[in-house]
Amino acid sequence: MRQLRKAGIVFATTGTGALIASSAAAQEAAVDTQYILNSFLFLVGGFLVMFMAAGFCMLEAGLVRSKNVADICLKNIALYAIAGIMYYLVGYDLMYDGVEKWFGTFSIWNAAQGAPGGADIVGEAGGYADHSDWFFQMVFVATAASIVSGAMAERVKLFPFFAFVVILTGLIYPISGAWKWGGGWLDQLNFQDFAGSTIVHSVGGWAALTGCLILGPRLGKYVDGKTRPMPGSNLPLATLGTFILWLGWFGFNGASQLALGTVSDAVAVSRIFANTNMAAAGGAVAALILTKALYKKVDLTLVLNGALAGLVSITAEPLTPSVGAAILIGAVGAIIVTLVIPLLDKVKLDDVVGAIPVHLVAGIFGTLVVPVTNPDAGFGAQAIGVLAVAAWVVPTSAIVWFVLKLTVGIRLSEEEELIGGDAAELGLEAYPEFVDGVPDGGRGVA
Amino acid sequence: MRQLRKAGIVFATTGTGALIASSAAAQEAAVDTQYILNSFLFLVGGFLVMFMAAGFCMLEAGLVRSKNVADICLKNIALYAIAGIMYYLVGYDLMYDGVEKWFGTFSIWNAAQGAPGGADIVGEAGGYADHSDWFFQMVFVATAASIVSGAMAERVKLFPFFAFVVILTGLIYPISGAWKWGGGWLDQLNFQDFAGSTIVHSVGGWAALTGCLILGPRLGKYVDGKTRPMPGSNLPLATLGTFILWLGWFGFNGASQLALGTVSDAVAVSRIFANTNMAAAGGAVAALILTKALYKKVDLTLVLNGALAGLVSITAEPLTPSVGAAILIGAVGAIIVTLVIPLLDKVKLDDVVGAIPVHLVAGIFGTLVVPVTNPDAGFGAQAIGVLAVAAWVVPTSAIVWFVLKLTVGIRLSEEEELIGGDAAELGLEAYPEFVDGVPDGGRGVA
Amino acid sequence: MRQLRKAGIVFATTGTGALIASSAAAQEAAVDTQYILNSFLFLVGGFLVMFMAAGFCMLEAGLVRSKNVADICLKNIALYAIAGIMYYLVGYDLMYDGVEKWFGTFSIWNAAQGAPGGADIVGEAGGYADHSDWFFQMVFVATAASIVSGAMAERVKLFPFFAFVVILTGLIYPISGAWKWGGGWLDQLNFQDFAGSTIVHSVGGWAALTGCLILGPRLGKYVDGKTRPMPGSNLPLATLGTFILWLGWFGFNGASQLALGTVSDAVAVSRIFANTNMAAAGGAVAALILTKALYKKVDLTLVLNGALAGLVSITAEPLTPSVGAAILIGAVGAIIVTLVIPLLDKVKLDDVVGAIPVHLVAGIFGTLVVPVTNPDAGFGAQAIGVLAVAAWVVPTSAIVWFVLKLTVGIRLSEEEELIGGDAAELGLEAYPEFVDGVPDGGRGVA
Repeated sequence: MRQLRKAGIVFATTGTGALIASSAAAQEAAVDTQYILNSFLFLVGGFLVMFMAAGFCMLEAGLVRSKNVADICLKNIALYAIAGIMYYLVGYDLMYDGVEKWFGTFSIWNAAQGAPGGADIVGEAGGYADHSDWFFQMVFVATAASIVSGAMAERVKLFPFFAFVVILTGLIYPISGAWKWGGGWLDQLNFQDFAGSTIVHSVGGWAALTGCLILGPRLGKYVDGKTRPMPGSNLPLATLGTFILWLGWFGFNGASQLALGTVSDAVAVSRIFANTNMAAAGGAVAALILTKALYKKVDLTLVLNGALAGLVSITAEPLTPSVGAAILIGAVGAIIVTLVIPLLDKVKLDDVVGAIPVHLVAGIFGTLVVPVTNPDAGFGAQAIGVLAVAAWVVPTSAIVWFVLKLTVGIRLSEEEELIGGDAAELGLEAYPEFVDGVPDGGRGVA
Repeated sequence: MRQLRKAGIVFATTGTGALIASSAAAQEAAVDTQYILNSFLFLVGGFLVMFMAAGFCMLEAGLVRSKNVADICLKNIALYAIAGIMYYLVGYDLMYDGVEKWFGTFSIWNAAQGAPGGADIVGEAGGYADHSDWFFQMVFVATAASIVSGAMAERVKLFPFFAFVVILTGLIYPISGAWKWGGGWLDQLNFQDFAGSTIVHSVGGWAALTGCLILGPRLGKYVDGKTRPMPGSNLPLATLGTFILWLGWFGFNGASQLALGTVSDAVAVSRIFANTNMAAAGGAVAALILTKALYKKVDLTLVLNGALAGLVSITAEPLTPSVGAAILIGAVGAIIVTLVIPLLDKVKLDDVVGAIPVHLVAGIFGTLVVPVTNPDAGFGAQAIGVLAVAAWVVPTSAIVWFVLKLTVGIRLSEEEELIGGDAAELGLEAYPEFVDGVPDGGRGVA
Repeated sequence: MRQLRKAGIVFATTGTGALIASSAAAQEAAVDTQYILNSFLFLVGGFLVMFMAAGFCMLEAGLVRSKNVADICLKNIALYAIAGIMYYLVGYDLMYDGVEKWFGTFSIWNAAQGAPGGADIVGEAGGYADHSDWFFQMVFVATAASIVSGAMAERVKLFPFFAFVVILTGLIYPISGAWKWGGGWLDQLNFQDFAGSTIVHSVGGWAALTGCLILGPRLGKYVDGKTRPMPGSNLPLATLGTFILWLGWFGFNGASQLALGTVSDAVAVSRIFANTNMAAAGGAVAALILTKALYKKVDLTLVLNGALAGLVSITAEPLTPSVGAAILIGAVGAIIVTLVIPLLDKVKLDDVVGAIPVHLVAGIFGTLVVPVTNPDAGFGAQAIGVLAVAAWVVPTSAIVWFVLKLTVGIRLSEEEELIGGDAAELGLEAYPEFVDGVPDGGRGVA
C-alpha cells in the first residue's frame, strides 16, 4: 500500500444528510482518532526500524574479525546519523515532493514548517502527522545504507565509505524510491513492492555488490585458488543482531500498511505481522535442514542468513499471502540464498556478512514472486522494476566508488588492513583484553 | 482474562432506542476503534514477547561455557522458528478451536482464510483481528520451548532437541493450554492463570525437568560427591538477556488482558505493567539481600534469576495485586528460587541456567498465591491446575525423550561433549579469537 | 508539557446543547478513546525508557575493564529495581502529591488504591490510567540513578552505592523534580524542561560529579602528572548500549508530551520523535568530524558520547525546534562534550564512561538553549533552574557520600580494586575464559 502514501487516506464516511451538530462532533472525533492511530503506527513502526540499525551493527560486529569490530560499529552508528541528515536535506523531497515520473524537488524537507501543533501541519498531510511519516521514511533509507557496510567490511576506508553513504542516501536511494513510492513511472506501471524488497533491500544490495567488485576481496581471502575462511569473532552478537532485525521487521513491513485508522487496516497490519514472522521462520528452518543435508554440520551463520532471507523475500508482499504461503516464500528465499552464498567465493566476490545474497538475491526473488499471491501484480512489471533499479543503482554507485577510488582512495593500505581497521583508523581495540597480539586467527594475519 | 479470548469481547453498548443514522455511524466508529486498539495491543505485546526469544538466547549464551555458545544460539533461533510453524500447523486449533474439555481440533490454523481485509475475517473474531490474536498466542508457545533449551544445554544433541520442540509446541503445550485458555475443564473448574505461570512457564519447566533427568548432568559436573562450578562465559550477555526478558514481560502480561478497547482495559493493562515491573524489582532486591546474607558475596546470576523469578511469580495474577503486594509476591518467589537453586546440585540435577527453579518452582508458587489477592480464585482449583499440568507434561515429555533416546540418541558422545557442541555439531567456534585451544576453564575440559 | 501532568487533560468538547442520548454515548466513546490513547502512550513510552536501563548497563559494561564488568552489570540491574521500590514507597508522592512550592507528601504511592478497574481509579486521574502515569514517571528516576553508576565505576563499593541510590531516588530526585514537574516554585517561575535535561540528566550528573570528587580517581589513572588510558573491554557492547539508549529516548522525550488523545498531541509526539532522532544524528556527526579534525583518528567512544550528548541536549525542548534546529542543537551539545571530556583528565576527575560531560554538561546546555526555539521560555528562569538544581543536588549528595564514607566506607580497598570488583565483591569473573590471570591490560593491573 506504500504507493498510496501521498494520495492521502480516505476516511470512512457515512451519510452526508442533515447531521445534527453533536453527531457531527462525534464524527470529527472518529476522524481524529484515525489520524492519531495512523501517526502512532508510523512512530511505533519507525522506532522498530530504527532499532534495526543496531541489529545490522551487531550482526556485522559479530561476523567480522576482532581487529575490525570497533570500525564496523563506528560505520554503523555514523551511517544511521548521516542517512537521517541527508534524507532531511535532500532525499525526502527528492523522493516524495511533486514526483511526476523520475524524481521530486531538490529542497530541504518541510523547511517552511509552522509552529508545533499548528493547524497547517495537521491539514497538509491528510491523515497523519507529517513528522511521523518523515520519521518512518527516514529509517528506511538508513536500512539501505546498513546493507552496504557489512558487505564491504574489513577493508573499506572510513571516510570514503561515509562519502558513499552521503550520495546513496541523498540521491541514489531517493530517486529510485521516487519511481515507486513517490508515485513515479514504476508505480504508474503497476510495479508492486509493498515494503521494499527492491526499493530498499535490492538498492542496498546492488550498491554493496558494485562496491565489493570495485574494492576487491580481503587480503588473503582467495589465495592459490583456495578460499580461506575468516570466521566471525563473536557469534552470539551476530545472533542478537539477527533477532533485533527480525523484531524490527515487524515495523518495517507492518507499518508499511501506512494506516491503522480502520478495521481493515488493523486486519492488514495483523496479517503482515504474522506473515513476516512466518517467512522468517520458514527461512530459518529451510536453511537449517538444507545445510544439515549439504554439509552434515549446521552452520549457525547460514541459519541466521536463512531467517533474514525469509524476511527480505516476504517484504515485497507481506499482505496477500496466507500464512502457509508466507512460510513457503521464506523457505524458498532461504534455499536460494543458502545455495548462492558458496557461489560468491567461486567468483571471488568477498561479501563479509552475506549481505548481497540476503538483500539482493532474496530481494529479487521476493519481488518476482509477488504475482503468485497478489493477482493485482504482473510478472512483467515486477521484472521491469528489478531491472530498472539495477540499471540505476549499479552505474551510479560505480561512478561514486570510482571517483572516490581515484581521488581519496577507498581501501586501507595493505599494512593497515593487516593490523585491522580498529588500530589503523581508530587507534584502539574493540576487545583489548580478549585478544592478544599473537597471530591466532585474526589480528596481524591477513 | 485470558479465558475470555474465544468468547469475544463485549462492547460497551448504550441505549438501543431510536438512533438516527448519523449517530449510529458514530457508534460504529467507536466500535471500530475498539477493534483496532485490541488488535494493536496484541501486535505490540506480541513483538515484545517475540523479543523474549532473543532474551532467552542471550541469557543462555552468557551462562554456558564458550564451547557451547554457538550451539545454544542456534537452538534458540531455530526453536522459535519451529514453534511458530508447529503452532500454525497443529497447535493453535488444538488449543482453541472447539475445545469442550480436553482439546480442540487437529487442523491447520485458518486454512480457509479469505482475502486480506475481507469482511469474513473481520467478522469471525469478534473484536480483534484474527492474525493479531494468532501472533500473540504463537509467541507464547515459543517461550515455553525456550525454557527447555537452557536447562538441557551443553550436552543435548541438536536435532533430537528440535524433535522434542516439535512435539512440545505442536501437542503437549497446546493440549494443556486448551484445558485453561481454550475454555476446557480447568477453566470450567475456575482455575486461574492470567498470563501463564502454569500454562507457559510450568509447562516449559516440567519438560525441562523431565529432560534433564533423562539426559543426566554434564560430564564432570558431579564427581566424587562434589559439584564442580562451570561458570558462564559471558555475564554481560546474560544480563542483557535478563533485561530483554524483563522488557518482553510487559507484553507477556500486559497484552494478556486481551483488550485495550475500553477505559477499564486501559486501567487493567496499566496496573499489569506496574505490577509486573515491581514484582521483578522485588525479586531482584530480595535475591540481592539474601545472597549477600547467605554467601557474603553477591552472585550476579542469582540476582538475574531473582528478577526472573519475580516475573514468573506475578504472571499468574498480575492484575489484582496492589503494587505493594506485587513487590512482595516477586520477593517471595525470588527467595524460594534462591533457596532451591543449590538444592538441585544436591540431587545432582544439572540445570545449566536455573530454568527449572525460575520457571517451574516460581511458576507453581505464582499459581498457588493467586487466591491471596484475587477473591475469585480458590486454592483447591489452583492446586488441581498445577498437578494436572504436571501429570500431563511429565509423562508425555518422558515418553518423547525416551523414544528419542532409544532411537537417535539425545546426548552428545563423551568426546563431543568435551570439545563442545560448537565444534562437534556446528564445526565452528563462537569466539574463535578469544579462547585458545589450551584448557583454561572451558574448552577441552569436562 | 510535563508540568501539565497533574492539571489533568482537557478534553475537546463540543456544543453542550440538547444532545440526544445516543450521540452523548458517542461523545463518551471519544473521551474514552482519548483516555486509552493517553495511557497507551505512557505504557509504550515507559517500556522504551525501561529498556534504557539495559542501554546504560551495556554502555557501562563495555567501557569498564573486564575485571569490573559483572560488578557494573549487578549495579545496573539492582539500581533499576531499587529506584522503582523507593519511588513507590517515597518518591512519587513527594514529587507529585500536593506540592505547593518545595515538595509533596511523605506517603506511599496510591496506598489506598481500589479494586482493579474500579471507577475510582478511572476518575481520579483525569485522562489516563494512574498506573500508566506512575510507571512512566518511575522509569525516569531510574535513568537518573543509571547515570551515577557509570561515572563512579571500577572503585565504588556495591552496597554503599546502593545506599546512595536509595536516597537519590527516594528523596533527592523527587524533591527537585517537585519544583518543576510537581508544579512547585521552578514551574511557577516558568522554568522550562520538557523531558528532563535538568530534572533528570543534570540531577544524575551532579550526583555523579559529587560522588567522583569524594571517591577520587581509579588507582593508577593519574600518575606523575600523566593520565593512563584504561580502555573499555568490549566496544560493541558499548555501541549496543548507545543504540538502546537512542531507541529508549523516543519514549523518554516522545511520551513526555503526556498525551496522545488529540490530533495536536499526535503532531507534537511526531515532531518530538523526529527532533530527538536528528539531535542524536547531529551529535554523532559533529563528534565524528571534530575528533577526526582534532586527533586525526576517530575515537568510537567519542562518537557514541556525541550521539548521547545530542540526545541530552534536545531533551529540555524537543518540541519547538525545527528539524534543522534540532540537528544544530545536538551538534553543538556534542561539540561541547567532545571538548570537555579531555578537560576532566586535566583536573584529575575520573569519570569512567563520560557520564558527567554527557549528562551534566549537555544537560545544562540543553536547558539554557531552550529560549532560542521556545518563545515562552526565558534565559533567566532557565539559569535559575540550572543553578537551583545544582544547589540542591550537590550538597545533599555530598552529605550522603560523606556519611557513607565515614561509616561503612565507599571505596574498595587497594587490593580489591587491583583484582577488580568482580573478584572482590562477587567472587566471579564476567568472562572467565577470555581473560587469563596474567596481567595484560586489565586484570591485576592498576
